Amino acid sequence: MYQGIAASPGIEIGKAFVLKENEIVIETANITEDKIPVEIERFEGAMTKSREQLVKVKEKAEKELGPDKAQIFDAHIMVLDDPIFVEEIREKIRSERITAANAVHQVVEKYVGMFENMEDEYLKERAADIKDVGDRILKNILGVPIQSLADLSEDVIVIAKDLTPSNTAQMDKEKVKAFATDMGGRTSHTAIMARSLEIPAVVGLGFLSKEVNDGDTVIVDGNKGVVYVNPDEETLRRYHTLRFDYIRYREELKKLRDLPAETRDGAKKVELSANIGTPKDVKGALENGAEGIGLYRTEFLYMDRENLPDEEEQFQAYKQVVEAMNPRPVIIRTLDIGGDKRLPCLDMPEELNPFLGWRAIRMCLDTPQILKVQLKAILRASHYGNVKIMYPMISSLAEIRKANAILEEAKNELRQQGIPFDENLEVGIMVEIPSVAVTADILAREVDFFSIGTNDLIQYTLAVDRMNEKIAHLYEPFHPAVLRLIKNVIDASHRAGKWTGMCGEMAGDPLAAPILLGMGLDEFSMSATSISQVKKVIRSLTYEQAKQIAAKALEMESPEEIKKMLHEVLEEIK
Amino acid sequence: MYQGIAASPGIEIGKAFVLKENEIVIETANITEDKIPVEIERFEGAMTKSREQLVKVKEKAEKELGPDKAQIFDAHIMVLDDPIFVEEIREKIRSERITAANAVHQVVEKYVGMFENMEDEYLKERAADIKDVGDRILKNILGVPIQSLADLSEDVIVIAKDLTPSNTAQMDKEKVKAFATDMGGRTSHTAIMARSLEIPAVVGLGFLSKEVNDGDTVIVDGNKGVVYVNPDEETLRRYHTLRFDYIRYREELKKLRDLPAETRDGAKKVELSANIGTPKDVKGALENGAEGIGLYRTEFLYMDRENLPDEEEQFQAYKQVVEAMNPRPVIIRTLDIGGDKRLPCLDMPEELNPFLGWRAIRMCLDTPQILKVQLKAILRASHYGNVKIMYPMISSLAEIRKANAILEEAKNELRQQGIPFDENLEVGIMVEIPSVAVTADILAREVDFFSIGTNDLIQYTLAVDRMNEKIAHLYEPFHPAVLRLIKNVIDASHRAGKWTGMCGEMAGDPLAAPILLGMGLDEFSMSATSISQVKKVIRSLTYEQAKQIAAKALEMESPEEIKKMLHEVLEEIK
Repeated sequence: MYQGIAASPGIEIGKAFVLKENEIVIETANITEDKIPVEIERFEGAMTKSREQLVKVKEKAEKELGPDKAQIFDAHIMVLDDPIFVEEIREKIRSERITAANAVHQVVEKYVGMFENMEDEYLKERAADIKDVGDRILKNILGVPIQSLADLSEDVIVIAKDLTPSNTAQMDKEKVKAFATDMGGRTSHTAIMARSLEIPAVVGLGFLSKEVNDGDTVIVDGNKGVVYVNPDEETLRRYHTLRFDYIRYREELKKLRDLPAETRDGAKKVELSANIGTPKDVKGALENGAEGIGLYRTEFLYMDRENLPDEEEQFQAYKQVVEAMNPRPVIIRTLDIGGDKRLPCLDMPEELNPFLGWRAIRMCLDTPQILKVQLKAILRASHYGNVKIMYPMISSLAEIRKANAILEEAKNELRQQGIPFDENLEVGIMVEIPSVAVTADILAREVDFFSIGTNDLIQYTLAVDRMNEKIAHLYEPFHPAVLRLIKNVIDASHRAGKWTGMCGEMAGDPLAAPILLGMGLDEFSMSATSISQVKKVIRSLTYEQAKQIAAKALEMESPEEIKKMLHEVLEEIK
Repeated sequence: MYQGIAASPGIEIGKAFVLKENEIVIETANITEDKIPVEIERFEGAMTKSREQLVKVKEKAEKELGPDKAQIFDAHIMVLDDPIFVEEIREKIRSERITAANAVHQVVEKYVGMFENMEDEYLKERAADIKDVGDRILKNILGVPIQSLADLSEDVIVIAKDLTPSNTAQMDKEKVKAFATDMGGRTSHTAIMARSLEIPAVVGLGFLSKEVNDGDTVIVDGNKGVVYVNPDEETLRRYHTLRFDYIRYREELKKLRDLPAETRDGAKKVELSANIGTPKDVKGALENGAEGIGLYRTEFLYMDRENLPDEEEQFQAYKQVVEAMNPRPVIIRTLDIGGDKRLPCLDMPEELNPFLGWRAIRMCLDTPQILKVQLKAILRASHYGNVKIMYPMISSLAEIRKANAILEEAKNELRQQGIPFDENLEVGIMVEIPSVAVTADILAREVDFFSIGTNDLIQYTLAVDRMNEKIAHLYEPFHPAVLRLIKNVIDASHRAGKWTGMCGEMAGDPLAAPILLGMGLDEFSMSATSISQVKKVIRSLTYEQAKQIAAKALEMESPEEIKKMLHEVLEEIK
């Protein structure tokens, strides 16, 4: 038995297919002057070959997986076509007198490092893309064959050190039943891909790929984060039953898709929405029955480029989402960058404590032109559907007023230009800083809604950077202080006739659902694939039951007690 | 008129004495093999000379300024005697073939950089000591004369780029009336020294020292942070009056020293205590009428050394303070290190967000042996007076219980050894993490007292690193959320029959005193020199007035409104 990190739920049993990792050896010695043209030619040859391969892979992916999954290869081809990237490598070969392979390796490592150090899930994914393209170019330079999961003859469980975007995008989806990888965490490419394919996955397994052989019998338990290799009869029998139960449970969930998210007695109806990062995520949101977009992260537009996106470009992206969701609401969050999420198109300072630094609305209020362009683009999109604006990282009343003053300017400019927008568009704020949760009654007068960003709210409330391994165990959504702050926000908004949503990870946690429902949370926004689980919990309880659970939790003194009670609740309604 | 940073209050008018800065030029070229012994000899000669000078300077300082001010030179002599420091320089000359001056410069810069990057005021001061000794050695190597403020023939106002610890310690205290420096902030050596000498100072003045000549008439307004050079008649006349008023005001404050800190109607009496960092700070605390030590920072013991201090050494330091203060209470805070406060004697990780990292009690609970040694030393000291223990950076009930379990072990070991300690010693926690302020009612059952650490509490509540220039303006003690959290802690403690103190900077702010008093705060602990100002405010109000002020502040929606009201209150009772 191997313990890893549960990355995608489900249970599968099958034969192992071990993806071998070809070790690439890079010659680091300097080359002589006369070899420079030869190396540049090798580099360019590998670029051409890589492009040809990617076009083919993309075609195949389009046919078998659909156009949106194939888009990943557009991102790869874009890297190949990026003149800065290409010229940087050429220049390196020339000026440092190194081999093509070495130059590609160095430049790719540089960009990968840059993107990996960003906290945002989307930006981090870019690192994998660049690494993946870099690997392909390197292999083409060195003549190393490129492995593929495209032609599998039977059902398999894929075991690998790590999976790259091109591994997964070319993959024969029908034949791959589960993943188990040595590397990765819950937000790694492998994990995200497995959740999107809805197949079980366990990641972070250490050296598993070195210990499994092709054809070994493997059990992947994506619920518990456990992998068994060549299990005994007893374990195998037990897991066949568990797998069957789980499949039945998932089917039940699917049936929930078109049912409303209301309590068993119909006394409370909530809205279950999806968090998205790009227009292409809308499809998944709708497929999973999202009633709206509770958080549209707009950072994607600003990533990986030298210049800021202009109003027109932003407008097109927002409009695409708004039209696709219409008449469902779309909450667009203004730029939430800064601190450790650095962008090449903005000049950002190094900070000692980036999480307590110049981020999000703070940066936008200091560079109001950037904010105004974005607000105008959002306002224009509001004409095409149901749009709400949300400011991130608000800590005080003064900041809301400053942001709204810029919004008024944006509106006036549009009015002068005769461009239509929704005059009644709602404006809300993220509640992710304790000061806002504590003074929600004061701020409720100034906003149309709140959306609680639990990830940051918990970090600040407990003074814990959850990315910091030494103290990650202190990060605790069920800390009584966190629950009280959430309650305070919901109550304050209701007293002012406003509503409260939640767009942090807690909103998608079935364990938290009974409490949040009982506290009166109006909207839950989460990754689309979590919607049905949360809906199941909501539909299983009466509103009175949920209220009692919340009241009980609020009287308890420790997270352990609270979680124990909630596990019992979930066990009962299972 | 020059605007700087108000570093020490008061107003002085006098003649400028400009401390000239000799530019030191360091030869960075490599030396030949045969010059190595010559350079080593130059280095050793300079060391001997520096030691002789320091011994003389120290004797003079002892005679004229008293033994505790002279102690700074012991620190300097200790650096000279530090075998690691000396050997590192010798080795550098030998192995890198560089001049003695260059080697000293590099090694000193390294250590100075290390200490300057620490957040703690005490550790930062060490950087100035090392820089100061390094400068002396360098000047002795290069034969540059060392300037001194020791032999002044008339009263002067000292103008300098920056003041070093040896500048100030040798200084003829009678003749120096004020400081004005180009560099520095409120916690720089110059600022701290000026406050301790109780002379006005303005720092951070840019290039003032280049624009003033010896004998110019200078006004230093340490209340407003302003300096006038050769002012006009009108300004001079105005400032003579202001100076006179200020002196009268200070004299009034001095008379308060032995009066109790109670409201005008005698309805509420509070305790005004001092924050200290080392046993030698006790004198200043008592001189300023401190009724106890509200925060004894123990980090000083762990600083600047290769090994952890043992139980006996800690016991001696604690006992010294406890005996000197007896029967007044001494609250000893357990080790509050970690994050950006790094120690050479502990292996600490690099962190992306050190303020949200492995700090204080978190580190101590992960290395319980360090905590137990300290707790035993504190327990032993408790036998000699009135000691209370305080844990820093508590975020949950579980941490208090874990720390108390280690305290129980420490008590048991002492009982087995037959060593006496105060069986009734009180144990409290710092309230500096929002989760604790929000759940103070739960935690009040588990502790004897709370002490609110406003510096961190405000940082976390507002998600603002106040050291970060880009956002320091968002750091706001009078944010309604901060006031509500403070109120919640005080109320929760009183309902449980416990008491609440405060040991952050807010406790020493006269502007905050009316609100804190009105909320029922029981103890205010601050830097000793602030005690009389706060006492004056407390003695000027009735308890009913203070309560009304607090109630009014708690209903206001913005810091600006609150501060406006408080300024009016202070104006009235002036």
